Amino acid sequence: MTDLFAGTFARGGAAGAVSSSAWFDALLDVEAALARAAARVGLVPSEAADAVTRACAEPAALDLAAVVARAADAGNPVPPLVRVLQAAVGERAAVAVHVGATSQDVLDTALVLLARRALGAIDADLAAAAAAAARLAEAHRDDVVMGRTLLQQGLPTTFGLKAAVWLSGLDGARARLRAVDAALPVQYGGAVGTLAASGGRGLELREALAAELGLTTTAVPWHTVRLPIADLAGALGAAAGAVATVAVDVVLMAQTEVGELAEVAPGRGGSSAMPHKNNPVAAISARACARRAPGLAAGLLAAMEQEHERAAGAWHSEWPTLTDLLTAVGSAAAWLAESLAVLRVDADRMAATVAEAAEPALAQRVTESLGDTLGRAAAHEAVADAARRAREAGLPLAAVLAERGDVDPVLLDAAGPDVGEAGRQVDAVLADHKAFVEENP
Amino acid sequence: MTDLFAGTFARGGAAGAVSSSAWFDALLDVEAALARAAARVGLVPSEAADAVTRACAEPAALDLAAVVARAADAGNPVPPLVRVLQAAVGERAAVAVHVGATSQDVLDTALVLLARRALGAIDADLAAAAAAAARLAEAHRDDVVMGRTLLQQGLPTTFGLKAAVWLSGLDGARARLRAVDAALPVQYGGAVGTLAASGGRGLELREALAAELGLTTTAVPWHTVRLPIADLAGALGAAAGAVATVAVDVVLMAQTEVGELAEVAPGRGGSSAMPHKNNPVAAISARACARRAPGLAAGLLAAMEQEHERAAGAWHSEWPTLTDLLTAVGSAAAWLAESLAVLRVDADRMAATVAEAAEPALAQRVTESLGDTLGRAAAHEAVADAARRAREAGLPLAAVLAERGDVDPVLLDAAGPDVGEAGRQVDAVLADHKAFVEENP
Amino acid sequence: MTDLFAGTFARGGAAGAVSSSAWFDALLDVEAALARAAARVGLVPSEAADAVTRACAEPAALDLAAVVARAADAGNPVPPLVRVLQAAVGERAAVAVHVGATSQDVLDTALVLLARRALGAIDADLAAAAAAAARLAEAHRDDVVMGRTLLQQGLPTTFGLKAAVWLSGLDGARARLRAVDAALPVQYGGAVGTLAASGGRGLELREALAAELGLTTTAVPWHTVRLPIADLAGALGAAAGAVATVAVDVVLMAQTEVGELAEVAPGRGGSSAMPHKNNPVAAISARACARRAPGLAAGLLAAMEQEHERAAGAWHSEWPTLTDLLTAVGSAAAWLAESLAVLRVDADRMAATVAEAAEPALAQRVTESLGDTLGRAAAHEAVADAARRAREAGLPLAAVLAERGDVDPVLLDAAGPDVGEAGRQVDAVLADHKAFVEENP
Amino acid sequence: MTDLFAGTFARGGAAGAVSSSAWFDALLDVEAALARAAARVGLVPSEAADAVTRACAEPAALDLAAVVARAADAGNPVPPLVRVLQAAVGERAAVAVHVGATSQDVLDTALVLLARRALGAIDADLAAAAAAAARLAEAHRDDVVMGRTLLQQGLPTTFGLKAAVWLSGLDGARARLRAVDAALPVQYGGAVGTLAASGGRGLELREALAAELGLTTTAVPWHTVRLPIADLAGALGAAAGAVATVAVDVVLMAQTEVGELAEVAPGRGGSSAMPHKNNPVAAISARACARRAPGLAAGLLAAMEQEHERAAGAWHSEWPTLTDLLTAVGSAAAWLAESLAVLRVDADRMAATVAEAAEPALAQRVTESLGDTLGRAAAHEAVADAARRAREAGLPLAAVLAERGDVDPVLLDAAGPDVGEAGRQVDAVLADHKAFVEENP
Repeated sequence: MTDLFAGTFARGGAAGAVSSSAWFDALLDVEAALARAAARVGLVPSEAADAVTRACAEPAALDLAAVVARAADAGNPVPPLVRVLQAAVGERAAVAVHVGATSQDVLDTALVLLARRALGAIDADLAAAAAAAARLAEAHRDDVVMGRTLLQQGLPTTFGLKAAVWLSGLDGARARLRAVDAALPVQYGGAVGTLAASGGRGLELREALAAELGLTTTAVPWHTVRLPIADLAGALGAAAGAVATVAVDVVLMAQTEVGELAEVAPGRGGSSAMPHKNNPVAAISARACARRAPGLAAGLLAAMEQEHERAAGAWHSEWPTLTDLLTAVGSAAAWLAESLAVLRVDADRMAATVAEAAEPALAQRVTESLGDTLGRAAAHEAVADAARRAREAGLPLAAVLAERGDVDPVLLDAAGPDVGEAGRQVDAVLADHKAFVEENP
Repeated sequence: MTDLFAGTFARGGAAGAVSSSAWFDALLDVEAALARAAARVGLVPSEAADAVTRACAEPAALDLAAVVARAADAGNPVPPLVRVLQAAVGERAAVAVHVGATSQDVLDTALVLLARRALGAIDADLAAAAAAAARLAEAHRDDVVMGRTLLQQGLPTTFGLKAAVWLSGLDGARARLRAVDAALPVQYGGAVGTLAASGGRGLELREALAAELGLTTTAVPWHTVRLPIADLAGALGAAAGAVATVAVDVVLMAQTEVGELAEVAPGRGGSSAMPHKNNPVAAISARACARRAPGLAAGLLAAMEQEHERAAGAWHSEWPTLTDLLTAVGSAAAWLAESLAVLRVDADRMAATVAEAAEPALAQRVTESLGDTLGRAAAHEAVADAARRAREAGLPLAAVLAERGDVDPVLLDAAGPDVGEAGRQVDAVLADHKAFVEENP
Repeated sequence: MTDLFAGTFARGGAAGAVSSSAWFDALLDVEAALARAAARVGLVPSEAADAVTRACAEPAALDLAAVVARAADAGNPVPPLVRVLQAAVGERAAVAVHVGATSQDVLDTALVLLARRALGAIDADLAAAAAAAARLAEAHRDDVVMGRTLLQQGLPTTFGLKAAVWLSGLDGARARLRAVDAALPVQYGGAVGTLAASGGRGLELREALAAELGLTTTAVPWHTVRLPIADLAGALGAAAGAVATVAVDVVLMAQTEVGELAEVAPGRGGSSAMPHKNNPVAAISARACARRAPGLAAGLLAAMEQEHERAAGAWHSEWPTLTDLLTAVGSAAAWLAESLAVLRVDADRMAATVAEAAEPALAQRVTESLGDTLGRAAAHEAVADAARRAREAGLPLAAVLAERGDVDPVLLDAAGPDVGEAGRQVDAVLADHKAFVEENP
Repeated sequence: MTDLFAGTFARGGAAGAVSSSAWFDALLDVEAALARAAARVGLVPSEAADAVTRACAEPAALDLAAVVARAADAGNPVPPLVRVLQAAVGERAAVAVHVGATSQDVLDTALVLLARRALGAIDADLAAAAAAAARLAEAHRDDVVMGRTLLQQGLPTTFGLKAAVWLSGLDGARARLRAVDAALPVQYGGAVGTLAASGGRGLELREALAAELGLTTTAVPWHTVRLPIADLAGALGAAAGAVATVAVDVVLMAQTEVGELAEVAPGRGGSSAMPHKNNPVAAISARACARRAPGLAAGLLAAMEQEHERAAGAWHSEWPTLTDLLTAVGSAAAWLAESLAVLRVDADRMAATVAEAAEPALAQRVTESLGDTLGRAAAHEAVADAARRAREAGLPLAAVLAERGDVDPVLLDAAGPDVGEAGRQVDAVLADHKAFVEENP
């Protein structure tokens, strides 16, 4: 990501969670935890493990530039990192460095830690977006808005229900990401997965390492069975979609001709050539970020065919692809949270559009009814006059007709849009949301 | 899928589960269940619902050709299907057809039913592959094979562990697909999701419909929040990857130069130009089918951005894409099951490759040891002679050296490959598999 | 493609061009051409080649069911096809069947022929869409429409220019597809590409075969260098995008709130739940079909990594993927042609929207001007009155103001939208189009 | 791209060509050229244009940090860049800044310049790889190697032909990229594409701008017709595939069991856990980089559906995606060039594998022939003895049999592998390559 576009495509907390220094932190966290785990199962002295832990806690004191310089030649950064770490802790403690591990053990586990940290940031941004959607659903529970299918006006619904549907997607995405997060497994198997260099204590060491890092374990290494990566790809792709479907609604409802929503953010959304424009930049940017996800997710799925005990390329391709995917989804979520937070809802215009769509039917009903008393022609004239005044005054036709006093209120009430069980559904989503927030603080 | 390639790409049961007639069955099952659910909540007479159920149970009596003919003009097949159904049940029962529903309610729910049926077929094929992998893991628990990383020989492992790793992926894929299957939700919301045409009993009707069909419910419609589709995309993509990573191992181990595995299937795998070849057709075909998945999954994720209350194109694009994805993953699973079922394992060659790789070190150890008693030159000559005889006889060097009687058995044993905790891990995977099979019959 | 959705996703001529029987035709065309080419270079008697040609011309007389039945076991349909063909022509002519070829030679060349035929159909559908776009550009060369950027109203443009931009994309897509088509190469190399079974006349035979089929040649086989497939993937993906960007404009301009375009196709576009709707089904379906392309194109690109002299799976995966891609793009093109052919353009509404957007500025200009003579208050009142009457009468403000007689026409003219060099650009595109059509009849 | 993986995934010159500073250079190059072009067509004074050109030539003097800070709020970096530039040149020259342009004009044209510069770097890396492949093809024109189809040994070919096939792909990829490069168009249309702010000289200005930058022109803007981006996606995806198919061959031929190729690069390819390994790191890394391409290309194709006169998100998503794609393909090409440059070819082992595969047939032929003179049993014994001695001595069977003196040399010669017209094809590819290099220096 070039800096120039970082404000757009590396927004939110996820981008920082997958930076180079975050990678080093994660790699060192794994090596430190591995040393402690090895001590715990009795493979190395605890003093040596302590020394490793201390060294890993001070990345600034390590020659990480050497790691960067040698990573490509080694095929991955772990071999040079191990050498740097061994040098840093000295010969006696070096026994506790990288015990029984292969590079992929450390790199995969670090990737998992990194993903977990980025998922935390993504979750926070999604939570902010969800909270905003919940506020909108609550505030506009009963505000009518035109429902639109295939981009044609259909029948009325409420903006509360629209926001509740958005909310259901955002919370659904969060639930999926959290489930994947909770199941993220440690990787530990040694060179070819047999634990042959783990002094007969490999399974115990794997358990201990998982416990150190708060990860799950698997019965065998997943060096070439990349289901945890696929889980991330799937849930992140789903989250991007859940964000995008809200963002496109914002963009569509912010169209000049629709004018029901607007992002109100000073200093944002202007156009160099067209100063009168107010572009919904945050929603647009959310869409832009979310669009990156499907191709990246496909890249991860396509990389699942991994050869023998360690793949020759497919494994490596996961690093930038997953990093980019986490960044893209995090950015999309952050932008959507910004968009929903500054959304100005024009409930009057929403209502007016609904009413306007209903007016032909209303006019016909009232004309027929008045015709019984006034005669057909006069009735027609009266309603046409009311329609003219309504248009001039920018009022609903029903309001102007009500002023006459001779129109049966039932007819006018009937003009009220039928939004069915929209409210009940909003309530149900809000209740689910409240429960979700309580369970997932 | 043209017929010409159906044997390769529409293999297994999933293809049949998504055929045109399977689609009609699913659509009619939904309409029938909807009628019964509407009766259950008191919206329509049960006699009318019974009439609809009966009509839906006899697709042959319906003018489905008319549905096919009109589906494209309507944008989807439900409007003409509803008309055909109404005509079939007569005016009185027509009240029980499509109660309060919009086309997408029926189509999405049918898609979900279709997916469930295809998932059942995929699960069966994956189960067959997993069972075969379990048999291999058990039978070859302690048979050594060369571990290979980055396609280079690394250190020894066991073929049992390789098969156990395969098994862990296949069972993992099944677990994911079953979790998605169990969560598949009904769709029911009416034209714009408000349940406005459901007589105030929409929520109850949604519950009843879900109960009729064994599906879950959601608090709001998911007309434009496509998480259930994304779940399918993710889990199917993951399953394809789990299959592919096994298939590529089979293909690589069946290489002439490796020769550790072969598919033994009479009448399969020959070459027109090269009659001596024995191509592992099933594993190759599994790879071919699995490769379709990432692009199709990406197509579904990219379609998640759906506008307003019903999307103008993205929704429609799901039908062929999900159909193809189910077919491709089912075919991949079916082929893998066939491959593993006919796999000939050459454990001797596996062992020989491991031993051969270890012989330089063994020869050096024995030469040094014999040198103490025979003198350096004689020791060298003795070991070289043993190596020559071993080569001629196709025996391991250790076996020939053992015949001498003057070589410390410890040295020869030391030549035995160290496969660490491979066996314990195989046992753990097999125990997990047994438990999984019991819980998921 | 299940029949149920064929009307939507297998529209246009391309679908038929990639059917099972089209595949057989193509395979037989290649075998026949190969026999003739072999005769031409003196490898087989021309009588034998004639017999092969005759047999290939009568697929109905061949046991193609046996080919279908055996294709999967062989890994591809060519080995059983060759046997069926040899049996059909008898022992003497069998010498002219499949001369020096490997299965992939025949299958790849057939795929190329198939692609060419499908490209012809796609080109015809794109040409129809382009012709419709050209008519629109010409008819509406100077009709103003609001230009919209980021879905916000921007500055005026013309509908002619919009259509011209569409046209530029459609003709651009056609040009790319035609270039790829013209470069499609024959495949001929024998089992491992050496031409070892071609009696020393392999290069000549390759040339002759290309000449028979109107294909280009390559210096070496492209068995594992899949650039021709990638070319198809790229150009078809581009064509899908060129279609989609038109379709989305139609869908957006057909929005109820915009109302500038509508598809007028009796019997199409209704809604079961909302009878007043007029969905632009053709444009929606074009979008749906076009969305399939990126994932399919990615599948073809991902399959380019092909091993050694013939790939174990990646090659096979091309067949259904390319077939589906050709079908999807053809369908998208066909739908777009249908959409543009039935498009009702509401130029008045377009103009009104432009004028309405300009009226605040116009009102201000005229108020200032009249203020000089009438005084500020009266001027304000006069303009407000004109605005009211314009609204009531549904007329542009400028028209009502013009009736006054005391407003400088220059001010009113200035209200006319500035569409810059829109017209010149329309003319340029139409000239390019005319030239393209002449060069590509 | 985090620094940690830059050595692997941002290798070669392309990565630098798409950096943040490269983006600024490109944006400023466009603004400068636009000023000059405006002067050329008489819209602004040439002194003002000169001032703009000078300012653009000194990015260090511009407040680009402000641009970075404001880019996201503006939706893209051009609006703040224009303000910075206007401030830098002063009020009088400001008239020559951004004449008649919209942000997308400048950004798209800069993207095109950036792509061109990255393509130059990619071309250089591909040229190095192609040159290495050409050297291999020439040096090993007649060295036999086993041809392998579906990863099974097939019939012999030459390593020269294998390398020539690689070369054909690399030169083919270069040709495609160069064609796309040569057709890259300028973007210039103003806010909504009408050229309304270009003083009636818009078409001339577009031509002049194209001439300034060495780009082509289009009859209308391609703001939402993204064929040039699709062309890049397609050709870059194709190039990645052409690289990957070579890389996978290297990886497969470097397998321990095959041992025909090795990368010999001191300090590279070792394994922390397995010191005896020699991983072909460059080829593996090339595969890893190339694998990124299909998903990224799909992302660009999926973004082609762009709304109205400027898309709300799809356009923006192109920037990081195309940047990453250029980087990935450049890295893949750079790694492949490194791999082929250090490839050690074991032609003896290649020949031995071919000979070994042929020996069963040779032994049978010679046994039959000697049987005529020695009698069946003695002939059998003689050949078995020769086979034993050949195996012990590591010699081809034919060589040992030749020592006997009583075996017809024709029989032994016949054992020589038939590589058909491999040599002629190598020559043809090399001639094509030479011509390509001359035409594309």
